Amino acid sequence: MFEKILIANRGEIAVRIIRAARELGIATVAIYSEADQDALHTMLADEAVCIGPARSTESYLNMNNIISAAIVTGAQAIHPGFGFLSENSKFATLCEEVGIKFIGPSAKVMDTMGDKINARAEMIRAQVPVIPGSDGEVYTSEEALAIAEQIGYPVMLKASAGGGGKGIRKVERPEDLVTAFENASSEAQAAFGNGAMYMERVVYPARHIEVQILADQHGHVIHLGERDCSLQRNNQKVLEEAPSIAIGYTLRSEIGQAAVRAASSVGYENAGTIEFLLDEAKGEFYFMEMNTRVQVEHPVTEFVTGVDIVKEQIRIAAGQVLEKTQEEIQIKGHAIECRINAENPAFNFAPSPGKIENLYLPSGGVGVRVDSAMYSGYTIPPYYDSMIAKVIVHGENRFEALMKMQRALYELEIEGVSTNVDFQWELISDPRVVAGDYDTAYLMEEFLPKFQKNN
Amino acid sequence: MFEKILIANRGEIAVRIIRAARELGIATVAIYSEADQDALHTMLADEAVCIGPARSTESYLNMNNIISAAIVTGAQAIHPGFGFLSENSKFATLCEEVGIKFIGPSAKVMDTMGDKINARAEMIRAQVPVIPGSDGEVYTSEEALAIAEQIGYPVMLKASAGGGGKGIRKVERPEDLVTAFENASSEAQAAFGNGAMYMERVVYPARHIEVQILADQHGHVIHLGERDCSLQRNNQKVLEEAPSIAIGYTLRSEIGQAAVRAASSVGYENAGTIEFLLDEAKGEFYFMEMNTRVQVEHPVTEFVTGVDIVKEQIRIAAGQVLEKTQEEIQIKGHAIECRINAENPAFNFAPSPGKIENLYLPSGGVGVRVDSAMYSGYTIPPYYDSMIAKVIVHGENRFEALMKMQRALYELEIEGVSTNVDFQWELISDPRVVAGDYDTAYLMEEFLPKFQKNN
Repeated sequence: MFEKILIANRGEIAVRIIRAARELGIATVAIYSEADQDALHTMLADEAVCIGPARSTESYLNMNNIISAAIVTGAQAIHPGFGFLSENSKFATLCEEVGIKFIGPSAKVMDTMGDKINARAEMIRAQVPVIPGSDGEVYTSEEALAIAEQIGYPVMLKASAGGGGKGIRKVERPEDLVTAFENASSEAQAAFGNGAMYMERVVYPARHIEVQILADQHGHVIHLGERDCSLQRNNQKVLEEAPSIAIGYTLRSEIGQAAVRAASSVGYENAGTIEFLLDEAKGEFYFMEMNTRVQVEHPVTEFVTGVDIVKEQIRIAAGQVLEKTQEEIQIKGHAIECRINAENPAFNFAPSPGKIENLYLPSGGVGVRVDSAMYSGYTIPPYYDSMIAKVIVHGENRFEALMKMQRALYELEIEGVSTNVDFQWELISDPRVVAGDYDTAYLMEEFLPKFQKNN
Repeated sequence: MFEKILIANRGEIAVRIIRAARELGIATVAIYSEADQDALHTMLADEAVCIGPARSTESYLNMNNIISAAIVTGAQAIHPGFGFLSENSKFATLCEEVGIKFIGPSAKVMDTMGDKINARAEMIRAQVPVIPGSDGEVYTSEEALAIAEQIGYPVMLKASAGGGGKGIRKVERPEDLVTAFENASSEAQAAFGNGAMYMERVVYPARHIEVQILADQHGHVIHLGERDCSLQRNNQKVLEEAPSIAIGYTLRSEIGQAAVRAASSVGYENAGTIEFLLDEAKGEFYFMEMNTRVQVEHPVTEFVTGVDIVKEQIRIAAGQVLEKTQEEIQIKGHAIECRINAENPAFNFAPSPGKIENLYLPSGGVGVRVDSAMYSGYTIPPYYDSMIAKVIVHGENRFEALMKMQRALYELEIEGVSTNVDFQWELISDPRVVAGDYDTAYLMEEFLPKFQKNN
């Protein structure tokens, strides 16, 4: 096992990793920007190294400074957390080069899964369902019509060489396809010097279902069941739960096995998440993407499985065999996470950094967990993500979990900055959310307009 | 189910009960003394009624005021917590008389189990092992010698009509018995007008093993496994854990069944605890007493069984059937609780009330729970018990739980008052405690002298 690791992150996830490492008897090195001198992660770690000014590009994204900090402090491994450098294969390569273990998959696997077309090809090879689409590039509107007929409308046309929103069109009906194709292709030609297109069925609304997997260095891959993360605002998850109410026993087993195949086929190592879109009406699910890191919402899975995912990440990186087999993983009860952000829902969720004058985190009683880097008197700096806490609850069933979340949000007190606590309170009290009857469209298209009208 | 209950307590247990009630959708009424106007339980409840001045006898022990508060607010039941009126059968009777459900056993059962000699007789009837002793009163030193020969030394002589420490003698050897008996009997005669004695083998040191039971109004009684509470200072528990390292599968099953028989035989209702002394060398256990209420250390059992004991108390009182059968109760992992007191270990643990200037409770990550009524800026009043928080951890095994407790105590910060946090830190780091090799004598006779020498 490692004797010392460096945590290349900040905020609650850095604190979460420091805690896991300390419980494993591993010394911890925090890195911090000049804005994070008084941050909880800076104070909790055994050592802390300042790696640059407030701006992320000069600190938490500054690979050379971070690697130097690891070398100077003698850290044997680096945990990247999520965001920042966690999915940067160049950083993983740099770690490898200086003999420091990157706690995550290899740079090669990160590259493969980071590229959408590569990842799709890999998934087809692994017999993981992908969103119906063209098998390669499409050059003419006649081809496009034939393919659309086959995969079904609506379809999305995307420039093969694309990016930044150029050369993209959503097409609802066959009669609109030819014009849309020609416009998009010309746009792509103009923007990228390449008019080739790529097509995919639009799966929206759908359920966002993701499967947590763990893979060790010895070929063992298991999944820890799914999370439902369909409640999103601008593609940002807001509330996550496990298990998903939209999935029965058979589908759970199928989607879990698909996730294991996905990870196995690319020789994945460490914790990862396979994200799927579930077409609830058809009962079909499609691979969307893989996140090659720990996720914000990992605690809901920890609550229902009893597995400490961050500890497993560290153990796996140290070469240990997975603690549990698939048969030993049982889903117990129901867990929900609400992300608490310093933002103002009344002003289009504008970030609201500042000093926390008064703080009460509702952590007592059965099945309530608050992961946060806040403390009374802490000043949230304006430079980083606005997520300041995660309230996670675990009940014997979904109803109990909802009641617990209501209780926890009722008690939660954050004075000095605006937060989305009231927004979350209304969300978990919303009849459709209480009934579990929601999809990826619900929050933006139905809940938010209602909320804005009433607030 | 009740619509509204009154919580006849203060501090963390009042907060714990308010949380459980709220999660069940039940409105809560707090009572508070004039000293507890800013207490967390006062603020968290839906309603709060001031029931008198700071002194407990005038507020938290003031039955009439409490009953009046319940009637005025329309509370249908009263949860007494622990301490205060929780084992007062007169209070339970008063509740019955005004048609308010007392959340606990009947007054009659409380009386039976509250009387040591009655309780012992009941246990013998229920075939629960009791500490070897005289079957009734002993009048002469000759009789005493014969009985001591049979039950084994050391023996305790106690005045049958006794109390307040009068007429009590511990006898190590037969040659000391006659003198001791005659002295004690004369003392009893002088003090109570009755020289009759009672004898019991001294089981010390031993393990303090207690079994949590739940009994509904429909004749179902189950046990939730045992807790080891052998680490005590002046008969006050300091650290508790579940399961006990001193007990194997067979003994666990035997002691659990004995506890169920004990509760069944007296027609017990609600949550209760049967306390046993375990003679580890002989592998024998003896009934000590029954606590007819929820206990401070109930969270360790909640962690290893997943049962919310306070919710079960409320459900049972409302007439519901137990949620689980004995077969459905599984002990998972290991839990430890450290009681955090506002006291100064360097000054013989003198209470240290006062204002908390700075507070950090380590509640995030997997398997850490802090039950407390503290908040930043809270002033601990000098009138009540010095326990201000319970840090409870749950690991996959005992070692992980110990590591988690170290991590949690490392993070815990309470500025402004003296606490026993460092004492607890040293206790959980003590090699004998780490090894689980301790008994009811260890803390006072070995650990404390060492601690005092070093601090």
